[in-house]
Amino acid sequence: MNKLLIVGSVAFDAIETKYGKTGTILGGAGTYIGFAASYFDLDSAIVSVVGNDFPQEYIDLLTARKINIEGLEIDKEGKTFFWRGKYHNDMISRDTLETRLNVMESFEPKVPEAYRNAEVVMLGNLHPLVQLSVVEQLTSPKLIALDTMNFWMDNNWDDLLRVISKVDIVTINDEEARQLSGEHALVRASQVIQKMGPKTVVIKKGEHGALLFQEDRMFFAPALPLEEVFDPTGAGDTFAGGFTGYLAQSGDYSFENMKLAVVYASNLASFCVEKFGPDRLLSLTPAEVNNRLKSFIELTQFNMKLV
Amino acid sequence: MNKLLIVGSVAFDAIETKYGKTGTILGGAGTYIGFAASYFDLDSAIVSVVGNDFPQEYIDLLTARKINIEGLEIDKEGKTFFWRGKYHNDMISRDTLETRLNVMESFEPKVPEAYRNAEVVMLGNLHPLVQLSVVEQLTSPKLIALDTMNFWMDNNWDDLLRVISKVDIVTINDEEARQLSGEHALVRASQVIQKMGPKTVVIKKGEHGALLFQEDRMFFAPALPLEEVFDPTGAGDTFAGGFTGYLAQSGDYSFENMKLAVVYASNLASFCVEKFGPDRLLSLTPAEVNNRLKSFIELTQFNMKLV
Repeated sequence: MNKLLIVGSVAFDAIETKYGKTGTILGGAGTYIGFAASYFDLDSAIVSVVGNDFPQEYIDLLTARKINIEGLEIDKEGKTFFWRGKYHNDMISRDTLETRLNVMESFEPKVPEAYRNAEVVMLGNLHPLVQLSVVEQLTSPKLIALDTMNFWMDNNWDDLLRVISKVDIVTINDEEARQLSGEHALVRASQVIQKMGPKTVVIKKGEHGALLFQEDRMFFAPALPLEEVFDPTGAGDTFAGGFTGYLAQSGDYSFENMKLAVVYASNLASFCVEKFGPDRLLSLTPAEVNNRLKSFIELTQFNMKLV
Repeated sequence: MNKLLIVGSVAFDAIETKYGKTGTILGGAGTYIGFAASYFDLDSAIVSVVGNDFPQEYIDLLTARKINIEGLEIDKEGKTFFWRGKYHNDMISRDTLETRLNVMESFEPKVPEAYRNAEVVMLGNLHPLVQLSVVEQLTSPKLIALDTMNFWMDNNWDDLLRVISKVDIVTINDEEARQLSGEHALVRASQVIQKMGPKTVVIKKGEHGALLFQEDRMFFAPALPLEEVFDPTGAGDTFAGGFTGYLAQSGDYSFENMKLAVVYASNLASFCVEKFGPDRLLSLTPAEVNNRLKSFIELTQFNMKLV
């Protein structure tokens, strides 16, 4: 089985949407990436840190999905990273009500010996120097993907550019792509970002789908139109996990295969938003995944004969 | 050749975008619908009204595109409908700076004898009772499509519902669909609108593409990502003209063929926004249309084998 190395937060979230609010639940980019990637036939491992308050049952959820947790440090001196936020009625914009970095503040990632030779690596949103430290521990990466956010563009621009120059794929959302590139049109934004190093750029537009750019090639997959978006938390990370999980499983990093990876990624993300937190990802069956892929094909494929 | 009957404003526009401003130029929903439909092999006719100030050269542009203008009334007593507006920097929202209805205020559409038996009819955005009057003059319609806007929902709700109940397809934008249905999610909005009568609903999302709904079937086509949107005026009408033009030419009103109509429609609309007003539509060559359809296929089609 091919190896996928995942780096990202394993954390606590407290979420409020128009449908209700949660207590403290399992969250974190690494968690969503891991759960999404677990739908593929892979040897995946997560590198992260949690505190002394992190319950064993959450760790068991990771191992039950066959995610290796050798690189999941438990810091006995500190508390787990915590985020609390509230979504506006449009289910897109949100207010962060509270962020406690806790153990994440001094996180020094250590990639387990057995995963330093992973071919595919997904660097979830974290401090760019943490992401860079992981890149430096790899022995033979073939495909490194990186997610980030506006916070690091505002505060750690040079560090961010340094790690971006060392990865193959950037996966970010549309507003972040605009900020990172200084260009409004996403076609141009992707060109600017490609000049920073990554050959491939994936721009996530939430309910409006995702765009894949590589040199002069372009592919688009819509988000499946849903009757109800219950909680958007983790959808972008689920997308990233689905994207890299599919590529790692296949070992085929061609543009044509990346198209399929985007479709698998969109498909998994469409489930994620149906319940609070990662609940829906945990109850998902292979038959449900397959049926929705069929819906995706009906939604997007047509048979046009051109002269 | 199959007949397409077009009803819609033929008018003057004055447009300002971040790229500049025009003087008084040719505009109007009927104009854009007609120009878009003229890329198909059709016998099309326009029903509209202009004033004594409408230049012969603009009328010549319509006839040069082989659009029958027998139903284009010239009101010697009045002036042509005029709209002036300014787009915000996002190129989506806009402010209407001036609207002079002029001859449109007392417009009584007369469908020419030779086009009363048109199978396909595109009712562009106009007063619902004007649209209804056209429907009542038809002898054997197979497919009537209707566009409308929030203004009529605010001011002529009952008239609007009356004409909507008599058409087969509604083509509106996302915000209008939400207002018409009272539902935020577009899947649900389309269900509510279908209950008003039309079997098919097309929801235009501008740069985010278009959705086609019919019973439990759904299809999506993105807008081609562009480096620059120069002027969005008329893109929605161009879409409507491309959609109904393709269907009229083929005479095939199946859902599978409507998918192709949506792709042709999106493709034509992607040209419309590249220059001020209808300029780009008038300079477009069949080779350019065909090449961009190829780009559309590369952008959206993939080859996935499911078990």
